[in-house]
Amino acid sequence: MRFGDQTRYRIAEGRSQLDLLAAAAGQALDRAGLGPADIDCVIGAVAGDLQPIPCTAALVWERLAPRSQVAAFDVNSTCTSFITAVDVASRYLVDGEYQRVLIVSGDVGSRFLNPGQRESNELFSDAAAAVVLTAGADPERGVLTSLQQTWAEHAHDTEIRGGGSLVPPYAYSAERTADYEFDMDGRRALRNMVRVLPGFFEEFFDRLGSSVGLGLADVDLFVPHQASRALGLAMRRIGIPPEQYIDWVSDYGNMVSASVPFVLARCLDSGRVRRGDLVVLCGTAAGLTANALALRL
Amino acid sequence: MRFGDQTRYRIAEGRSQLDLLAAAAGQALDRAGLGPADIDCVIGAVAGDLQPIPCTAALVWERLAPRSQVAAFDVNSTCTSFITAVDVASRYLVDGEYQRVLIVSGDVGSRFLNPGQRESNELFSDAAAAVVLTAGADPERGVLTSLQQTWAEHAHDTEIRGGGSLVPPYAYSAERTADYEFDMDGRRALRNMVRVLPGFFEEFFDRLGSSVGLGLADVDLFVPHQASRALGLAMRRIGIPPEQYIDWVSDYGNMVSASVPFVLARCLDSGRVRRGDLVVLCGTAAGLTANALALRL
Repeated sequence: MRFGDQTRYRIAEGRSQLDLLAAAAGQALDRAGLGPADIDCVIGAVAGDLQPIPCTAALVWERLAPRSQVAAFDVNSTCTSFITAVDVASRYLVDGEYQRVLIVSGDVGSRFLNPGQRESNELFSDAAAAVVLTAGADPERGVLTSLQQTWAEHAHDTEIRGGGSLVPPYAYSAERTADYEFDMDGRRALRNMVRVLPGFFEEFFDRLGSSVGLGLADVDLFVPHQASRALGLAMRRIGIPPEQYIDWVSDYGNMVSASVPFVLARCLDSGRVRRGDLVVLCGTAAGLTANALALRL
Repeated sequence: MRFGDQTRYRIAEGRSQLDLLAAAAGQALDRAGLGPADIDCVIGAVAGDLQPIPCTAALVWERLAPRSQVAAFDVNSTCTSFITAVDVASRYLVDGEYQRVLIVSGDVGSRFLNPGQRESNELFSDAAAAVVLTAGADPERGVLTSLQQTWAEHAHDTEIRGGGSLVPPYAYSAERTADYEFDMDGRRALRNMVRVLPGFFEEFFDRLGSSVGLGLADVDLFVPHQASRALGLAMRRIGIPPEQYIDWVSDYGNMVSASVPFVLARCLDSGRVRRGDLVVLCGTAAGLTANALALRL
């Protein structure tokens, strides 16, 4: 659907978040030329769960290969869950604990939007994306460094209050619908984000420099979470020039946990990035959380 | 409260899961002689979230030290979330990425019980527990080996269907209350659990043997998830004698994600285990997931 010059995607009637996640996971396996039996671990890295119990990874795996065994768990840092999951998975891969990890991300934000809150209502798209990470023998490739930080004093800038234990589903009523919908104080969230990001990236680049001797200029592509139309403003504040990052907010909006893997997958498909390139996955999430991870493809 | 000879605990009116989690986290810091500034990372390891957005770790940290920064994310494998979180955290600690990780677990199962389903209604207790894991120089201590597996064909033996995207809060109605409550097919869950556990533990002990040359007899204490009154039956099937594990189901019931850290903490307090002991944290969770982790204290 369109909001002015902005394109957003909505899940089809009768389709579920599980349908999207399972389709993305199946595609990732097909592209990798692998079957479920090749996967040692599946990580669900979504913002909003399918069910409170069991975890999303188990429910996705039930669709893919119910009769096979796998290690299955979820990792959650809201919109940057995928980045956190890549960081966690890479440690298991480097340790030799797993050989191949499937990470599946995706949300159906449209089902939790408040039609009265125009900014968020016109921002989100429904999407899913998945990747397979494989252990490799080349120590130059893989995750080079990462950084994650949360500024919890801003935990309520962006939230869905209802659906967990604090505001349970059974307290739902026609008078309280807004409690169960996405609630974002866009101006406050942006102000806080812009305030913390420069220092955060300074620390990230310090790590990249001290660990592998690389800097901003060595990064082939930044793949930021497509948080909002203020993405360009945030990247300018950090000092990342437009040619070095992807801004597809007008074309796809904020795809919640799917934004980062979706953009990464598209850039791999198109040849925008390829083996050997240095990619930085990054973004901000509700929390307020910032995440950055340097990945040598 | 009492059900026959079984004691169960219920959260006080007006108290929340967040109150329990924050209290447990605060106690863990106090016992460790640490303040929030000493913590690099906080992992929320609960079965049921506080809110859909942001993650539980961020909301707990907001209570503890809102003006400080920390890496905050959640790890979820339902009832064994704590064990998964210890495994994840230990990799960050060994890598030198973090020096101290706070893991906080706990659920308020009583708020999601179906009074018509006697078996589950009389099984759960509300509880929270937290630990601080610290990087150490002694390679003999810490996590020695771990194993996690999910049999997703049994994903619906134990579940809460409603509250996420598949059966959203706004679909709640007086006719559908059971969809939002804990639903366990106790006999089926037990049958499947007993079927998979012996092979799972055989593999776990193979790992323990091949990685550090230890076996069942070297384990000072098994700290199992207090899943149900069938705990003794399950341990018998695995071949673990009563004196080697804790069964407090009659005294505390199933404390969901808090069971394992609560029992561990009590055993540390009482001197039942101490520095140098080999402890195996283990259990089954909705998924169907099995988890085991050997920890040298």
